[in-house]
Amino acid sequence: MKVTVSRRAHFNAAHRLHVENWSDEKNSKIFGKCSNPNYHGHNYELIVSLTGEVNPKTGMVIDLKDLKDIIKEHIEEPLDHKNLNMDVEYFKNVMPSAENICIFIWNTLRKHIDLDKELEVVLYETPRNFVKFSG
Amino acid sequence: MKVTVSRRAHFNAAHRLHVENWSDEKNSKIFGKCSNPNYHGHNYELIVSLTGEVNPKTGMVIDLKDLKDIIKEHIEEPLDHKNLNMDVEYFKNVMPSAENICIFIWNTLRKHIDLDKELEVVLYETPRNFVKFSG
Amino acid sequence: MKVTVSRRAHFNAAHRLHVENWSDEKNSKIFGKCSNPNYHGHNYELIVSLTGEVNPKTGMVIDLKDLKDIIKEHIEEPLDHKNLNMDVEYFKNVMPSAENICIFIWNTLRKHIDLDKELEVVLYETPRNFVKFSG
Amino acid sequence: MKVTVSRRAHFNAAHRLHVENWSDEKNSKIFGKCSNPNYHGHNYELIVSLTGEVNPKTGMVIDLKDLKDIIKEHIEEPLDHKNLNMDVEYFKNVMPSAENICIFIWNTLRKHIDLDKELEVVLYETPRNFVKFSG
Amino acid sequence: MKVTVSRRAHFNAAHRLHVENWSDEKNSKIFGKCSNPNYHGHNYELIVSLTGEVNPKTGMVIDLKDLKDIIKEHIEEPLDHKNLNMDVEYFKNVMPSAENICIFIWNTLRKHIDLDKELEVVLYETPRNFVKFSG
Amino acid sequence: MKVTVSRRAHFNAAHRLHVENWSDEKNSKIFGKCSNPNYHGHNYELIVSLTGEVNPKTGMVIDLKDLKDIIKEHIEEPLDHKNLNMDVEYFKNVMPSAENICIFIWNTLRKHIDLDKELEVVLYETPRNFVKFSG
Repeated sequence: MKVTVSRRAHFNAAHRLHVENWSDEKNSKIFGKCSNPNYHGHNYELIVSLTGEVNPKTGMVIDLKDLKDIIKEHIEEPLDHKNLNMDVEYFKNVMPSAENICIFIWNTLRKHIDLDKELEVVLYETPRNFVKFSG
Repeated sequence: MKVTVSRRAHFNAAHRLHVENWSDEKNSKIFGKCSNPNYHGHNYELIVSLTGEVNPKTGMVIDLKDLKDIIKEHIEEPLDHKNLNMDVEYFKNVMPSAENICIFIWNTLRKHIDLDKELEVVLYETPRNFVKFSG
Repeated sequence: MKVTVSRRAHFNAAHRLHVENWSDEKNSKIFGKCSNPNYHGHNYELIVSLTGEVNPKTGMVIDLKDLKDIIKEHIEEPLDHKNLNMDVEYFKNVMPSAENICIFIWNTLRKHIDLDKELEVVLYETPRNFVKFSG
Repeated sequence: MKVTVSRRAHFNAAHRLHVENWSDEKNSKIFGKCSNPNYHGHNYELIVSLTGEVNPKTGMVIDLKDLKDIIKEHIEEPLDHKNLNMDVEYFKNVMPSAENICIFIWNTLRKHIDLDKELEVVLYETPRNFVKFSG
Repeated sequence: MKVTVSRRAHFNAAHRLHVENWSDEKNSKIFGKCSNPNYHGHNYELIVSLTGEVNPKTGMVIDLKDLKDIIKEHIEEPLDHKNLNMDVEYFKNVMPSAENICIFIWNTLRKHIDLDKELEVVLYETPRNFVKFSG
Repeated sequence: MKVTVSRRAHFNAAHRLHVENWSDEKNSKIFGKCSNPNYHGHNYELIVSLTGEVNPKTGMVIDLKDLKDIIKEHIEEPLDHKNLNMDVEYFKNVMPSAENICIFIWNTLRKHIDLDKELEVVLYETPRNFVKFSG
């Protein structure tokens, strides 16, 4: 009797897409406006989903207040109102594409969620573009 | 050639979370504001999804008017504008957490949907908290 | 050069509509399912809007963090996860219809917002039903 | 390390549901208002999702600008502001139900997306009715 | 003490924009894809707002069930799943642009709402295009 | 017979809030996380509304394709995927707060819209924070 519970969160951040050892022309050709050297930004919306057994006493898979706090401490605080390329250690060597940010969030949360629960992360870069990673 | 068809529905209800044989302190510690003895409430949004073969004549997996009527009769009418703990027999012995409400809805609908169709239920307790059950 | 700034907030609550000195039949006839004596509930969504001059130094009408805190202290904390009829003094003598809740919120906030700013409150009882009051 | 990337698109179209060799009475009984001989219409919303490996250089599964262009050329331009029954060759012999439109979109896009990527299409006929096909 | 109450409704319809005594070239130049002779369609979303005094007994400006029924009878039933140009008498001589549909709805509802209440109608042709009329 | 027509648009940008001749402490105290020297960003959503007479021939206040093009040329292209503080001349001397961006958009559009039409601009910085300016 496994149920999936989901929690929505959000953070606002700046980023740019560029490959260090490519020319400006190549970066601009591949990433278009996303390679603006002065950065641009997004309201990132995040859906974190856990799948596991329902505790027969509490009727819950996880206390959503606990999940909310885990997301706040490990995702929202390090990423909100940040420049992902400059302010977040992980993205100094990794391109902060939506795909890679989603993988980063999944890897970060995986350490704080019991392993008997499956984890999936959906990240909206805009209401029209979004990505999903489940390990 | 299986297709999934989904229908959105909604109901508004009051509920509270508490375990009968726990102290008020323990209930309050585990469930926080959700254990308010005078109840609180939600606009529950529901997405019911069926997966099955497309009828080659009608081009449909199921007539959505039929699915709408099944949801109306078996879910919306018994739950809408109700106090889940007090007015719904099933929740007299089961905690009306989002997880359990979702399982209740799935079990109720399963009896009214042909078994050659898979069933999945997503229940939004708020736009930020939601659960999914597929049997 | 007046600009309107708006902030969205939310709270979840139970309520019922009934007039004390009406018969059950009359209450049921006028308020339908909303008069269920065991209550039902909603996710109330709130938009608070202030209209005023832009401070030429900060570029702001009001610091939205301040507005967020005022709403949290005076509206969300007293109303969230409450039974409006039973837990909120004001609604012991006033019907907690969407209209009256909106007027209550407006009157409560008006005391905490500088009078050189106009105030408007929109309250969604459901995504389909909402009300607006501006004094 | 597979990630799913999704892109939202939309088109507005007219259609009707009816089976050529059924009587008007039978069409009306099965399809109700949807069989109006003068057509009705919808704002169709579309979510196209690809699942594949992240390119270690670009950090992307696919360049979303490329996906956007593929959807524009092969789906939005042929379907937008069209009468599906009359203007789209494929639906001259196939009922333009949401299920069949979704299969048509999937089959059309499948030819333009590398086969190392899985494809899924979700089609909203209204915000309350939607279908999903993944091959 | 005037409060505005709003109710959301919807209908799906086909239409086309064209001026009878203009050439096909001129119609196509002015209305673009919207002049397709075979029609296209939309999910129209409607917000009807009434402004009036709150009844001190019921706490309501109008019983929203009554407003819902008025909209259903006079707007949804005549327009839903219709071809506006062909099936609706009024649009045989009036272009069914969003502006004109909104005026039509306002004029129709005005006859069924007490004159001590102000009336405003917002009509969404798509989530990106909408119009408002208040007499 | 004046009708208001509205068009939704969007752009993604980076910005920061800070007053040049204030100390870092004061900037941080007033603007909090919004003063991050490395910038953060948003998906700005924009609603542009024009109020005017309906052309009796076309049934329109303005051709929405024209309005869409005006917004694209004068707002989306100069602001999308930009750093507002660094890349947009106007904000070199003006704080890019939501209020000031909204005034900038209104002033920019006002030059390109006939003066017999009233103009209003709503700018969402996030789904929870938005501002409105009408001159």
